[in-house]
Amino acid sequence: MNGAESLVATLVEQGVDICFANPGTSEMHFLAALGGNPKMRGVLCLFEGVATGAADGWYRMMDTPASTLLHLGPGLANGLANIHNAKRASSGMVNVVGEHSVSHLKYDPPLTSDIEGLARPLSHWVRRAESPNTIAWDAARAVSKAREHPGQIATLILPGDTSWQQIDAAPQLLPVRAEVRKAPSGERIEHVARVLRSGEPTLFILANKATRGLALEKAGRVAAATGALLGSHFFTARIERGAGRVPLARIPYAVAQATAFLKDFRHIITVETREPVAFFAYPDKPSLLKTQGTFVHPFVEANEDSELAFDMLLQALGAPDTAPLLQPRIETPVPTGALNPMSIAHALAAALPEDCIVVDESLTTGRESMSLTMGARPHDLINNMGGSIGYATPVATGAALACPERRVFCMVGDGSAMYTIQSLWTQAREGLNVTTIIFANNSYAILKTEYANMGAGAPGDRALSMIDIDKPRIDWLAMARSMGVPGVAVETAEGFHKALIDSTRETGPCLIEVRL
Amino acid sequence: MNGAESLVATLVEQGVDICFANPGTSEMHFLAALGGNPKMRGVLCLFEGVATGAADGWYRMMDTPASTLLHLGPGLANGLANIHNAKRASSGMVNVVGEHSVSHLKYDPPLTSDIEGLARPLSHWVRRAESPNTIAWDAARAVSKAREHPGQIATLILPGDTSWQQIDAAPQLLPVRAEVRKAPSGERIEHVARVLRSGEPTLFILANKATRGLALEKAGRVAAATGALLGSHFFTARIERGAGRVPLARIPYAVAQATAFLKDFRHIITVETREPVAFFAYPDKPSLLKTQGTFVHPFVEANEDSELAFDMLLQALGAPDTAPLLQPRIETPVPTGALNPMSIAHALAAALPEDCIVVDESLTTGRESMSLTMGARPHDLINNMGGSIGYATPVATGAALACPERRVFCMVGDGSAMYTIQSLWTQAREGLNVTTIIFANNSYAILKTEYANMGAGAPGDRALSMIDIDKPRIDWLAMARSMGVPGVAVETAEGFHKALIDSTRETGPCLIEVRL
Repeated sequence: MNGAESLVATLVEQGVDICFANPGTSEMHFLAALGGNPKMRGVLCLFEGVATGAADGWYRMMDTPASTLLHLGPGLANGLANIHNAKRASSGMVNVVGEHSVSHLKYDPPLTSDIEGLARPLSHWVRRAESPNTIAWDAARAVSKAREHPGQIATLILPGDTSWQQIDAAPQLLPVRAEVRKAPSGERIEHVARVLRSGEPTLFILANKATRGLALEKAGRVAAATGALLGSHFFTARIERGAGRVPLARIPYAVAQATAFLKDFRHIITVETREPVAFFAYPDKPSLLKTQGTFVHPFVEANEDSELAFDMLLQALGAPDTAPLLQPRIETPVPTGALNPMSIAHALAAALPEDCIVVDESLTTGRESMSLTMGARPHDLINNMGGSIGYATPVATGAALACPERRVFCMVGDGSAMYTIQSLWTQAREGLNVTTIIFANNSYAILKTEYANMGAGAPGDRALSMIDIDKPRIDWLAMARSMGVPGVAVETAEGFHKALIDSTRETGPCLIEVRL
Repeated sequence: MNGAESLVATLVEQGVDICFANPGTSEMHFLAALGGNPKMRGVLCLFEGVATGAADGWYRMMDTPASTLLHLGPGLANGLANIHNAKRASSGMVNVVGEHSVSHLKYDPPLTSDIEGLARPLSHWVRRAESPNTIAWDAARAVSKAREHPGQIATLILPGDTSWQQIDAAPQLLPVRAEVRKAPSGERIEHVARVLRSGEPTLFILANKATRGLALEKAGRVAAATGALLGSHFFTARIERGAGRVPLARIPYAVAQATAFLKDFRHIITVETREPVAFFAYPDKPSLLKTQGTFVHPFVEANEDSELAFDMLLQALGAPDTAPLLQPRIETPVPTGALNPMSIAHALAAALPEDCIVVDESLTTGRESMSLTMGARPHDLINNMGGSIGYATPVATGAALACPERRVFCMVGDGSAMYTIQSLWTQAREGLNVTTIIFANNSYAILKTEYANMGAGAPGDRALSMIDIDKPRIDWLAMARSMGVPGVAVETAEGFHKALIDSTRETGPCLIEVRL
């Protein structure tokens, strides 16, 4: 057994059994080890940002980390933007980054770079595997870090000689420890119970693991018992929403609308998150979105257990059996006519099948009207937590691999889709059930709004030419076909609805170009 | 005048008049300033790796830096792989990276990251612009660093408030200083002259600015006067080659062939480079390629002037008027029949027009047979110096903008092309004279060789599935069309030759898929 085989075997033993890979010469022994271990699934990606984004998507649906295989410093660099997004989404991930062997490094060959330096700004844990005999411990530690709550980014640097040298003895590792559920202090429970008993207008902001499963249901009981509103930031890692779920009010994106939404709350109670902050700074707008006079009460910290916290809070409130208020199903008629944010949302509300997954990076077109899909059939909604564009198509890829029996709808602006468009190829290769919806407005439309928001006025022709992407227009059907994905273009709301339904009738990926 | 306007004006004053941009919200004032300054050309790129690679291509042809505009840490991260390649090619570059305003940073909004941390491993110079009143000095310093010889990577971080605040007074900057030509010491000249007078087998290895212009011509005089061989590493930033130029022997890529090539030289004299090192480490192969007993003599250091050095050497040798040996034109007949490395090289040799630019990232298909194009019409050859895949299509984009009257041939493997394929869109948008040649073997073919070289044997089915990219096959004509680039597929050598010639007949980009 060589170092690479020990590494792959350890990853599998510790529960990491998928690797999103973009290998190079220095990773050939890892590839051989991956090929030789039937318990590890290798998924080839043609760009590293697809690999890291797919690992993020995998974690969002599985709550357990995937691994990536990247080729030296530049390969890691290509994956960093989606590692940033994963980090902000609290998605655990184990990155294996190939490196020259120790004896070769001193000659500073062309692909040499400071891999630790590149990894540290966006990793919680970085280590260089120094020997094939200890790599199993390194790998186990990486997985253990990645599995923490909130999930962590662990980056393991794998020199060639560590990879290819034989180990002296098979490693003996401890079994994976079950996660310990960490509770908030009784003092904090009591404090929040007092706030709720005051009857003053109160908003819970739920995030991370509090927006789904039993945690969400129990939050719903608290809301029903106290009259507090349950809400979320504009972006949340994953929400279980739709008919039959506890609904969450979404704090708007734009600063003016967000402050208007928040101004009447006397209290904000945060759950696995912090108080609302503007996404960007603008010359004459505040960074903090709450009104002066609103109190912020941290309830569940990022590393604590929301389900347990809401259990304790329900006990403190004497209301453990209160039934939560659930979102009723809203039968949305199939829209007809022009495509606009409202008809698009209505088409989605009517078409989304039960238990589907929606990955949203639609920016101007889709996201403002997502509230209209609250009464759709139950589904998961995934958002971009780090703000680095190009997250949706890779995350959809990973989510589809994690949940092969569920259809993933990936809503993405045309500008955003271009950053990591290579995802389509992996979707075709793996036959993934992803419906990619391209909102083709031939523009970085969000930037036109932001240009004005920044006080830069209306953009002139030369500035506009850096925002419009209509020369040339991207032919999305040709783009999809080039990577083996069938596509269809729609120009009406009913056409969009039909294309959504059609896409669920066959397995495998497809692309819908929504012409705006 | 605000900070962004001062920045753009300073870049232009200091000779940086093109900006490869992928902007976001925090860069709106820079965009407005760019729009308002007709002396600065903005070139929109749909992925940051295209922007940084294009800046590299610009520098290779102009010997003067371009700027890039990137969106916060993740935008910089997406550009890092081609910054790595540019750094290794000694290409100067000024990166402007948007950042949140100071007042906003403390709230740690989603797009926050350690930009300095991300920039430092691959930049020679990093600074955060702290005030609109001093940004002109920051920008001038960045340009001055980028213009050094060898070229440097300068990264300037631009917070939103620095960008949008008004300056108190117009900055008064010193004019750009002419570069001082730095000479090697007389002692080194004398030493090298002694080595050459010994008559022992000697190889010059030329790199960077020594492989073109008067430096190359004077190196040719030294070779003619002494019988020393002139050579280059396998990869060189830019070589002026072909008929009428001083020819350079290329050290092979593969370790066995490289050591065989080098073994008979008693002396290696390095010019703006170091002794040959293997690209990767292999279990049973050496890292240094020279034979034991070969002496390495550093002649011109990376920051010294090769033309001046060869002038001094010619004086020391008493041979200033020796005529250089020049490569004769070899009229290559148009090849017919099957496409293979040899017929491909012959087609290129016959078709390449005078004064064209060849950017080579062809890996298995093209690069081993490039010696067959030595007698082609005079042209420039550009190679990947950093080894990070995905450099060719962006570098070709920048080179074509730098030299609008010359046609650029971008030779790229199908695997490599996928990393930064968004380049095609910028080529179509700007009407650039780039012929992209895709060698479509549906495989990371180089890795099959490397798998064996690594002693991992023949890859099994599961490992092979991570190397072959034939499921699905990429439809290159659809890919090109999707971004507004016309394409043609060829399956014979004569078809390839014809497509090359055809591509020179009209302006604008085109793509040739070479089906292997």
